[in-house]
Amino acid sequence: MTGDAAARRTLGVGMVGYAFMGRAHSQAWRTVGHFFELPFAPRMAAICGRDHAAVAAAARRLGWAAWETDWKRLVDRDDVELVDVCTPGSSHAEISIAALEAGKHVLCEKPLANTVDEARAMAAAAARAAAVGVRAMVGFNFRRVPAVALAKELIAGGRLGAVRQVRAAYLGAHLVDPEFPLVWRLRAEEAGSGALGDLGAHAVDLAQYLVGDHIAGVSGLTETFVRERPLPEGGGRGPVTVDDAALFIARFGGGAVGSFEATRFATGHAEGLSVEVNGELGSVVWELGSLNQLRVFDATADPATQGFRTVQVTKAGHPYAGAWWPDGHTIGYEHTFTHEARDLLVAIAAGKDPVPSFADGLQVQQVLDAVQRSAAAGSTWTEVAA
Amino acid sequence: MTGDAAARRTLGVGMVGYAFMGRAHSQAWRTVGHFFELPFAPRMAAICGRDHAAVAAAARRLGWAAWETDWKRLVDRDDVELVDVCTPGSSHAEISIAALEAGKHVLCEKPLANTVDEARAMAAAAARAAAVGVRAMVGFNFRRVPAVALAKELIAGGRLGAVRQVRAAYLGAHLVDPEFPLVWRLRAEEAGSGALGDLGAHAVDLAQYLVGDHIAGVSGLTETFVRERPLPEGGGRGPVTVDDAALFIARFGGGAVGSFEATRFATGHAEGLSVEVNGELGSVVWELGSLNQLRVFDATADPATQGFRTVQVTKAGHPYAGAWWPDGHTIGYEHTFTHEARDLLVAIAAGKDPVPSFADGLQVQQVLDAVQRSAAAGSTWTEVAA
Amino acid sequence: MTGDAAARRTLGVGMVGYAFMGRAHSQAWRTVGHFFELPFAPRMAAICGRDHAAVAAAARRLGWAAWETDWKRLVDRDDVELVDVCTPGSSHAEISIAALEAGKHVLCEKPLANTVDEARAMAAAAARAAAVGVRAMVGFNFRRVPAVALAKELIAGGRLGAVRQVRAAYLGAHLVDPEFPLVWRLRAEEAGSGALGDLGAHAVDLAQYLVGDHIAGVSGLTETFVRERPLPEGGGRGPVTVDDAALFIARFGGGAVGSFEATRFATGHAEGLSVEVNGELGSVVWELGSLNQLRVFDATADPATQGFRTVQVTKAGHPYAGAWWPDGHTIGYEHTFTHEARDLLVAIAAGKDPVPSFADGLQVQQVLDAVQRSAAAGSTWTEVAA
Amino acid sequence: MTGDAAARRTLGVGMVGYAFMGRAHSQAWRTVGHFFELPFAPRMAAICGRDHAAVAAAARRLGWAAWETDWKRLVDRDDVELVDVCTPGSSHAEISIAALEAGKHVLCEKPLANTVDEARAMAAAAARAAAVGVRAMVGFNFRRVPAVALAKELIAGGRLGAVRQVRAAYLGAHLVDPEFPLVWRLRAEEAGSGALGDLGAHAVDLAQYLVGDHIAGVSGLTETFVRERPLPEGGGRGPVTVDDAALFIARFGGGAVGSFEATRFATGHAEGLSVEVNGELGSVVWELGSLNQLRVFDATADPATQGFRTVQVTKAGHPYAGAWWPDGHTIGYEHTFTHEARDLLVAIAAGKDPVPSFADGLQVQQVLDAVQRSAAAGSTWTEVAA
Repeated sequence: MTGDAAARRTLGVGMVGYAFMGRAHSQAWRTVGHFFELPFAPRMAAICGRDHAAVAAAARRLGWAAWETDWKRLVDRDDVELVDVCTPGSSHAEISIAALEAGKHVLCEKPLANTVDEARAMAAAAARAAAVGVRAMVGFNFRRVPAVALAKELIAGGRLGAVRQVRAAYLGAHLVDPEFPLVWRLRAEEAGSGALGDLGAHAVDLAQYLVGDHIAGVSGLTETFVRERPLPEGGGRGPVTVDDAALFIARFGGGAVGSFEATRFATGHAEGLSVEVNGELGSVVWELGSLNQLRVFDATADPATQGFRTVQVTKAGHPYAGAWWPDGHTIGYEHTFTHEARDLLVAIAAGKDPVPSFADGLQVQQVLDAVQRSAAAGSTWTEVAA
Repeated sequence: MTGDAAARRTLGVGMVGYAFMGRAHSQAWRTVGHFFELPFAPRMAAICGRDHAAVAAAARRLGWAAWETDWKRLVDRDDVELVDVCTPGSSHAEISIAALEAGKHVLCEKPLANTVDEARAMAAAAARAAAVGVRAMVGFNFRRVPAVALAKELIAGGRLGAVRQVRAAYLGAHLVDPEFPLVWRLRAEEAGSGALGDLGAHAVDLAQYLVGDHIAGVSGLTETFVRERPLPEGGGRGPVTVDDAALFIARFGGGAVGSFEATRFATGHAEGLSVEVNGELGSVVWELGSLNQLRVFDATADPATQGFRTVQVTKAGHPYAGAWWPDGHTIGYEHTFTHEARDLLVAIAAGKDPVPSFADGLQVQQVLDAVQRSAAAGSTWTEVAA
Repeated sequence: MTGDAAARRTLGVGMVGYAFMGRAHSQAWRTVGHFFELPFAPRMAAICGRDHAAVAAAARRLGWAAWETDWKRLVDRDDVELVDVCTPGSSHAEISIAALEAGKHVLCEKPLANTVDEARAMAAAAARAAAVGVRAMVGFNFRRVPAVALAKELIAGGRLGAVRQVRAAYLGAHLVDPEFPLVWRLRAEEAGSGALGDLGAHAVDLAQYLVGDHIAGVSGLTETFVRERPLPEGGGRGPVTVDDAALFIARFGGGAVGSFEATRFATGHAEGLSVEVNGELGSVVWELGSLNQLRVFDATADPATQGFRTVQVTKAGHPYAGAWWPDGHTIGYEHTFTHEARDLLVAIAAGKDPVPSFADGLQVQQVLDAVQRSAAAGSTWTEVAA
Repeated sequence: MTGDAAARRTLGVGMVGYAFMGRAHSQAWRTVGHFFELPFAPRMAAICGRDHAAVAAAARRLGWAAWETDWKRLVDRDDVELVDVCTPGSSHAEISIAALEAGKHVLCEKPLANTVDEARAMAAAAARAAAVGVRAMVGFNFRRVPAVALAKELIAGGRLGAVRQVRAAYLGAHLVDPEFPLVWRLRAEEAGSGALGDLGAHAVDLAQYLVGDHIAGVSGLTETFVRERPLPEGGGRGPVTVDDAALFIARFGGGAVGSFEATRFATGHAEGLSVEVNGELGSVVWELGSLNQLRVFDATADPATQGFRTVQVTKAGHPYAGAWWPDGHTIGYEHTFTHEARDLLVAIAAGKDPVPSFADGLQVQQVLDAVQRSAAAGSTWTEVAA
């Protein structure tokens, strides 16, 4: 007997941007329906970029059915029901708000925006949209690592008791070479901030998510070690106007304290994101470099054999893991986006607001803003705006 | 401006089997063209399974355009130019040989066959097919881990000097529970062997591939710790007729020695594949549990700071890694199959025999056979047939 | 032929205190002459404690020839040429200054004192004593771990280039249990501070030592999670008046930045001292839990095989290591004190001031004081007094 | 008040040999009484070596009261009640038997002897001596690592259930350099065997001790990679007559299976002793390189958070650990000998035979002999003599 594969109910996706994040999200949209039971099959309707030839090539390469060179046309397309915003932070607000106002669901990459004002406008737009059933989500993808989701389950279930301390870092070494050029990410007007927004945003979101509490105040410092770099277009050097590294200490609303670090000068590290949470009954440690593992300490166990347990979070019963491979087979970085796409589609179908919401993204932005203000004021203690 | 993504030259793929390996290969076929420059776009033409409803559902779920319930019809389809054999080992020979004789390229999962005789017939069929430009490859996917490929480059480039010792293991704990049922994998008539063929085949292939030499002789033992298990269909217990664990020591043709272990009783381990190679100038160690890393020791470096170096094999210059994400972003288990698909398509387009070939698969089978014969004869030393 | 072991030139040591540190120092004095070529054989002349029976038992147990119950008598003994101060911090100043003024060399445990004023007086006394050939050293023993000394050699030799960032922590979990009693270490009047002085002092000294630079300013916070604890003598609870945890961020004089943490609430950690230094050419990481190892990253090496190298610092050519066992045999915590004793004896014989000096101890105290003042002032930025 | 430390009941020790093992044992005898409550204070009466000047210097350096140049005189000394044999294996039998017959307790370094015949004679002498209250112990020191002793407690207490598999290795790289000279350890007539006896003996003893069962049969291979080496005395090269590496697979009497490796050609490893035991309910893993840790897997724990737990075996309640430092402070290699000395003294005072006994040493020798015979006979299966 012979047959042809049938169609299912679909949801049209349009994506703006096709660089690193665009590639990662494309892989998620292509893949999610093959591993998860979904309420809709995502349909990769159209992709948008300013350069005609480049976006056409990207559409072919990444699997999108059509392309646009103007994001407003993409938002307007009838076959686009969800807009996935993968552009640099400076255009997040404009695109996301327009899409929400056009009744399109939005997935927006992190950080939500380059400024708190933009983020606030986006959160307001998301709240208005939610009232009419249109959903918005910000892409803090690492929440969707199975080991992180397991850590969240443990903490939310009380397995750590009251949380006392957090340490979170995102260590990179991208800029150790002083001849690395002055790309847009190193200019404040385009990137907003440096390591702080690019890397620190993830550390802040993860820490707050796991603890289940907000950072209330911070004292921070930022440093730019290499203050001039070669212009990419040639012709000398220009000033680096963002931070190379940002360090801060923090208090959470509920009494926990934390130390945070985001840096592009941690020689030897690549994508060194880690978070540790210490509670009165136990601790958890997670590192992106070994993302399939969670280290768990249970202070209530027999003292003679207490120790950090390295849990391989690849079992069928673990969050997300059952959709993939039998126990012991690892997943990678890209799978976090697939999980994100799955959770967004499920929330849309259920008529619920997905998390992390734009309001969550705004709150992270306010933490980052407090760090920048503290650093600018000589590391003075700075409350995070509510 | 608006446009539609255009087509490219394609190669039709038909797959037999849609369990674990079928799912993994499907992900590879779906994904490979989005990350690698390919001579052909693989077209997922049809999938085959015996159960009509199940195969139809699998086709939809896995992304195949059509389905068949008889593998001979799949092989005969005009739109199928390559047959991907993901069935249990007992049918590898029949399907692969028929496909090759029908002029279809073949990718066959490992182990190549359940017996040396079948593997020999397959290698002969592959040799005949190669003479007319039809290609065959056996799926030892772990060769395509970037860290393993880097290890191969280092060894082949002389960085370890003469190889002295190898230790390779594949540790699992699938069967520690004595109430785990008597599935087909535990019956010799269907599975051929137990841990030896299922897990040991990978360890043997990796070790030989890295050393660049064949195992010449072995002394092995096998053990079945739990000799009766519950019948899956109920009604009591039946005998386990394959090994739970297989251990052997080996000599390579060129003088290296090695120890090998494959087991389903290594409590606490899941997919614990590892291989270490010690040479006169250095060593490499790789473990599947941290597959993005390679540990490298250089005995020619400054003694004061010698040590095993943990290399994160995620840089653009590393094998395969440049096709994926920026440095530091990990890939997972499934990516090995994507790399395998890429290499096979490149070889077909280039008119070259891909590796590992069916002859390589036969050679691994001969090693496993020598281990089984040694174990059956009370661990007597047994030469590997040439 | 038969013979008896002969005597050598000796230096009489007197020790005050015989608790944890006293036991560790005793082992050092007993051991040092058996492994190192020394200018003097240390003679364990007398030990001092207030309780007659207890100090007599300690003398027997720890190997001291005699005992005293008044430290002034110990200092006065003709057979005591060096006074080793192992008492709580509140008596360091009085004993050390008296001993120095009596012309006795002094080894004083860290932290140098409970207050900056005391430390300043001690440093002044040490300077006066040095002018007449009497030496003083503060016991930051971890400088004498072979792996730390190797790290210092690498950094001082320029192998890391300009230092950019430091992260140092001393994580313990001593106080996670809220029923742990209110011992003297938790009362400010006796202990000065909590985790900050007890644990943080080590982290600060190690970081400054390795970087070869002083911390110029800090922003810190301290927290006492459990504010009342059971009185050890029974009868209810009393207030904890020291910090449970101290976190701070710092700037070094030469431009490096750092994050520091000292805590007794890091559930799951025991003696979790670690320090990492990132420079423009490389990085080093050391952890007390694996004290025989140093991790070294060389950014100038071949990019394809760059990675953190785990150096087992147990070779004959490594600092201190050659005095002990053949390569690969580890030493433990106590050996740091033996190395300290050796270096002190060598400095005395050479007529040189040993390091870390009392001035170094004072400087660490000033950093801790700045942290406490910053924390007390709501984490305001605080310069370290010169 | 002033006083002098008093004497206790003592036991006179005489040691033969003062190289690596003599230095390690001397540190144990000097130290044990300062940390453990002992029935006797060991008195370091005399040391013996053939070279007058060297042994006199060693006595001074190592802390022995007197010296001898003839071991028979040492055995005869009235002030020697226990003879500690730290010579090469070829003289173990003669000295030990003479000492036992003279009524002196004996501690003999491992391997017990170079041949099974010698070991058998020693075990017989020990049995005769035991009948009159004279005790003998063989120095498998690694049994006395706290983490190993904890592993033994867990296994003996049933925490692993029935043992299924063991893997043990002792990896070194001493001989990777082909210009390393032909020292006595590389000549069969003096050393008996190579890596097998020197390193493999430890792996065999640890595995049998932990499992609580004997190896019943083996199949082994040995290899000498560099067959000629420079003569230490100059004048060309001579043949290496011992193994560089020995690998074997084994069956225990109770049904467990194991793989073993001892090698001096594992480039990059130094003192790489490790042992893993897998049982039906759990597993333990121990490595000498991180000797204070034990990794423990409990298959009966909640599946969601199962994993290998890294236990820092430094708590007061752990074997031996309470005698040393507070939790988290590590000990090193030499402490194993201190524990050995303590256990021997306790056994002597209690009138009990210490373990491991000479009979245990003989049994290990028989395992090694079976490996050698198997290897000599082309890896044929060889039963271990009872």
